[in-house]
Amino acid sequence: MEADWGAIRTDLAMEAHELATQRRGGMIPGVISQSEEKGPARISRVTIQTEEAGRALGKQPGYYVTVEAPALRRRDKDDLEEVGKILAEEIRNFLREMQINEAASALVVGLGNWNATPDALGPKVVELVLVTRHLWSFSPPEKRGGLRPVCAISPGVLGITGLETGEIVAGIVQKIHPDFLLVIDALASRNVERLGAVVQLANTGINPGSGIGNRRLGITPAMLGVPVIALGVPTVVDARTIIHDALELTGAGMGIQREFLNIQERLSPFFRQLIVTPKEIDILIQDLSRVVAGAINIALHPGVTPEEVFRYLD
Amino acid sequence: MEADWGAIRTDLAMEAHELATQRRGGMIPGVISQSEEKGPARISRVTIQTEEAGRALGKQPGYYVTVEAPALRRRDKDDLEEVGKILAEEIRNFLREMQINEAASALVVGLGNWNATPDALGPKVVELVLVTRHLWSFSPPEKRGGLRPVCAISPGVLGITGLETGEIVAGIVQKIHPDFLLVIDALASRNVERLGAVVQLANTGINPGSGIGNRRLGITPAMLGVPVIALGVPTVVDARTIIHDALELTGAGMGIQREFLNIQERLSPFFRQLIVTPKEIDILIQDLSRVVAGAINIALHPGVTPEEVFRYLD
Amino acid sequence: MEADWGAIRTDLAMEAHELATQRRGGMIPGVISQSEEKGPARISRVTIQTEEAGRALGKQPGYYVTVEAPALRRRDKDDLEEVGKILAEEIRNFLREMQINEAASALVVGLGNWNATPDALGPKVVELVLVTRHLWSFSPPEKRGGLRPVCAISPGVLGITGLETGEIVAGIVQKIHPDFLLVIDALASRNVERLGAVVQLANTGINPGSGIGNRRLGITPAMLGVPVIALGVPTVVDARTIIHDALELTGAGMGIQREFLNIQERLSPFFRQLIVTPKEIDILIQDLSRVVAGAINIALHPGVTPEEVFRYLD
Amino acid sequence: MEADWGAIRTDLAMEAHELATQRRGGMIPGVISQSEEKGPARISRVTIQTEEAGRALGKQPGYYVTVEAPALRRRDKDDLEEVGKILAEEIRNFLREMQINEAASALVVGLGNWNATPDALGPKVVELVLVTRHLWSFSPPEKRGGLRPVCAISPGVLGITGLETGEIVAGIVQKIHPDFLLVIDALASRNVERLGAVVQLANTGINPGSGIGNRRLGITPAMLGVPVIALGVPTVVDARTIIHDALELTGAGMGIQREFLNIQERLSPFFRQLIVTPKEIDILIQDLSRVVAGAINIALHPGVTPEEVFRYLD
Repeated sequence: MEADWGAIRTDLAMEAHELATQRRGGMIPGVISQSEEKGPARISRVTIQTEEAGRALGKQPGYYVTVEAPALRRRDKDDLEEVGKILAEEIRNFLREMQINEAASALVVGLGNWNATPDALGPKVVELVLVTRHLWSFSPPEKRGGLRPVCAISPGVLGITGLETGEIVAGIVQKIHPDFLLVIDALASRNVERLGAVVQLANTGINPGSGIGNRRLGITPAMLGVPVIALGVPTVVDARTIIHDALELTGAGMGIQREFLNIQERLSPFFRQLIVTPKEIDILIQDLSRVVAGAINIALHPGVTPEEVFRYLD
Repeated sequence: MEADWGAIRTDLAMEAHELATQRRGGMIPGVISQSEEKGPARISRVTIQTEEAGRALGKQPGYYVTVEAPALRRRDKDDLEEVGKILAEEIRNFLREMQINEAASALVVGLGNWNATPDALGPKVVELVLVTRHLWSFSPPEKRGGLRPVCAISPGVLGITGLETGEIVAGIVQKIHPDFLLVIDALASRNVERLGAVVQLANTGINPGSGIGNRRLGITPAMLGVPVIALGVPTVVDARTIIHDALELTGAGMGIQREFLNIQERLSPFFRQLIVTPKEIDILIQDLSRVVAGAINIALHPGVTPEEVFRYLD
Repeated sequence: MEADWGAIRTDLAMEAHELATQRRGGMIPGVISQSEEKGPARISRVTIQTEEAGRALGKQPGYYVTVEAPALRRRDKDDLEEVGKILAEEIRNFLREMQINEAASALVVGLGNWNATPDALGPKVVELVLVTRHLWSFSPPEKRGGLRPVCAISPGVLGITGLETGEIVAGIVQKIHPDFLLVIDALASRNVERLGAVVQLANTGINPGSGIGNRRLGITPAMLGVPVIALGVPTVVDARTIIHDALELTGAGMGIQREFLNIQERLSPFFRQLIVTPKEIDILIQDLSRVVAGAINIALHPGVTPEEVFRYLD
Repeated sequence: MEADWGAIRTDLAMEAHELATQRRGGMIPGVISQSEEKGPARISRVTIQTEEAGRALGKQPGYYVTVEAPALRRRDKDDLEEVGKILAEEIRNFLREMQINEAASALVVGLGNWNATPDALGPKVVELVLVTRHLWSFSPPEKRGGLRPVCAISPGVLGITGLETGEIVAGIVQKIHPDFLLVIDALASRNVERLGAVVQLANTGINPGSGIGNRRLGITPAMLGVPVIALGVPTVVDARTIIHDALELTGAGMGIQREFLNIQERLSPFFRQLIVTPKEIDILIQDLSRVVAGAINIALHPGVTPEEVFRYLD
């Protein structure tokens, strides 16, 4: 289910929408979009209402929110925490709109490969998520102090486990029956300016072929029978995308598609495995993990203050 | 189900048997034991035939084999590989006796905490296990070249996931239906001489309270409905055990139990969390992971030679 | 230069003093000692005034301060930071008494093996030390904002580099001429209750044979020609020590020395490499690194507030 | 000392030579170049004889050898070892031509940042280098078995230590007086096809501004007074380079330089920090470290067979 834009690949609905409107030269029927500024962040909301609109954008119908904040890429703690709080509010909005109450139990899933730096966001977030499910059953309701039962797992990738991530998650869901899932993944964007600077939330779950690791099986509400919130951050751009963009900027015009394929042919097959990423990707992943895990801890546990959350993240 | 030996704790059936015969001054009815030398290893086989014998030893009835090889603690590759091959044979014996055939699918489970060095054996072995399940279904039978479908997972520990290890494993087993499990764990022994020098195999699975991490839920054939081979290596001794032994060696006699409790009282509660381990525990865990993973790869994949296996372990 | 106490080994002057007074049944001439309570910490100051007193204690003459705070072993951030601030004050006292002024340049040295968890304290602290030397020369004096020029290095261990730590440090000192050194090391204590609960400061530098890694060459003011403050934290106890203590508690009396040697003989040579350490040593080292690095950053940079320092430690 | 090719950056003399001849449309006076096939590798030898030729190529005068082997990027052990042996021969050729005898002592230096995956090659190689200096002095000449005294260090980067790498290396060299240096670094190439597929050797040492980390101070024979062999592997391509290449392939002709600058202006300043690298960079660095360390161990220790060397690398 990918729109035919040559090599341009993006996991962000907002970018897919931008591209589609550009190409069509106008609005896409069945897509509602709006955006607002909020402190250091720009928040975009895209609703894909119909299957047809979904095909036009190459995305599942559903509700997508992106929190865009270049501050995520700077190393200032105050900025990072402020973005974390805004992100927490957006996660709470999702819970509210999906009618998930404050006592509903959560399973947080960190997708990706802990041995591949740009793909390790999910597992790193999971290490920082405040898990409470194992404590919760021992404490009387009046003592639970605004803590929701939360558990968390990093299922690994096919090459390490021999198991489809979707199988592992489905097995655990059927065993422990969480009320909803929050699934974290590293994404590909089409624009280098969004690398490490955007968090996308969606009520669609994770679809096959998305994420850096290109999962084969989805992790979706339909598959699991429970709501699934997907949270993703672009950490790479496909190397072919920036070439495509450069060609476009030259005004290569109609011939661009042909030129591009031509260039790809001359370059090696190895080229398809190349990514564009910041030199300091290890530090970026570390900072992003803290912000995302902080936002999750604030949003899932109404009784914990943001100050407490960020203090205990290390 | 622990025999009352004061503070003496061991996860090795062979040590439990030694202790029980010492105390009773004779053989334990319902326990059959024998041992043999095999190259650099001494192999002991203990069968606990009855529930009563199990209570006397503080172990589940079942068949236990220990491969004891001080060479495991030296850093010589030839020695390590030789022990690995002997261990592989013993794993194959288990498969044969449990009537698990060459095409039966395996789930390898690495128990323990990857953030705590002496408890990280299981997860480290899993990183080195040759997984094939995802490739297997794509290849025609005549091309499978002696590769059994194998998948592997490290479920983490309660404090990281909020989930009982047993729940995660049961969920995955019910989803993917492996024909048998091979579960790896770091153990506690009662004798410092066995630290990192012994591998125990058992057909009983993993029982609650065993292993360094003191799991609450078992991972047993009864619980999962499939055979479970447990493979464990002692990497720590409880600090209280070596004090107990020292007292015994002084010939403190009848009063030893009283003295010991007395000493414990004077020492802090913190003392209960102390372990005895080699200074070079990080290197020991790394060497042991290679030997154990090598043995598993040889035993599970009849078409792979030991030479190939050890060559590709890094 | 170790006093003859059988197998009892300690790197803490305070413990050496306790032992010596116990054995002698009275004060040691040439040793001045006092202690005080300060919030959650107990601070002991021992001055060894003469060579003879040094021999009695098995320590170099000099000034030793220990900050003892069991809170270091609990995982409460407020407690950890409070101990960090007290430790910072004591480091500042050392600077003052050693007449090291606020602009004097520091070289922080993290001794130990980053591949051996209990020995990795020094390298981990160095990763968290706020280095400024490379920025300092570019900024005019009025803009230096209370930042002292600080650089930091972890020289590794002999088995990894093939170089004596002392050679590497001496080479760097002769090249960059720091005004003083602050050397961090993991230590052995004789009492499990002090594991991870004590920080020792000394103006003697690091002497041969001290620390977990048993360095052969010292890192001392005499060797380097500049003041050397040594900061150490006990992270292990020699396994032989706790046996010795147990025997002593039984009142084994005069025969204890003989019994002990007897026991050692029966135990394997491997026993000498065994340490007693908390099961959660990885987490303990992480917490201690933060406290020690935080205290160093506060003490070395008068213009940085403790709040800023702890906020940026992750 | 960089030739003016717009944004095209390369640390490989062979690529600089290719570029310069292309632009000039002919040979560069003062540069001798030849190449040969050797098993799975293509070996190119470039000698830059004059300062003027050096300016034309943007490289120091000296002798450069590149071993180009796409097999380095495949995960086949036999191939990796074969390339390792060819590389070892080339290192030995350098030793011979630089008149460094078999007993001459070596200091191996691993440049780069161990916390940044594509820049971590040097430190990872150092962890695998067989160090012998500390053992050598204890063994009589007839027992040294073809082992040269070798020591090794990873000095870290300015942001971690506050020290120029060159200062640390100079300090150690002046202290321990090695007979020669072998310095390992991760490089930038201009062609994605050379990523992880080429090893460059040079007798020029490391010059300021080269390597991923863009060092400010050189590590050169002139600076240190001893021969310095530099060994580097390209692990990244500057993202601007692939855009430049794409434009060139479109035949944008004369306007290319202008177009390119135009594109850069429209893209963010963040763009300058972007690299192109394989998705599986972590695994590539690990494989390359083994090959390079293996080649170094073979070349430096004439008494060790290649089989022994690769067997002990893990």
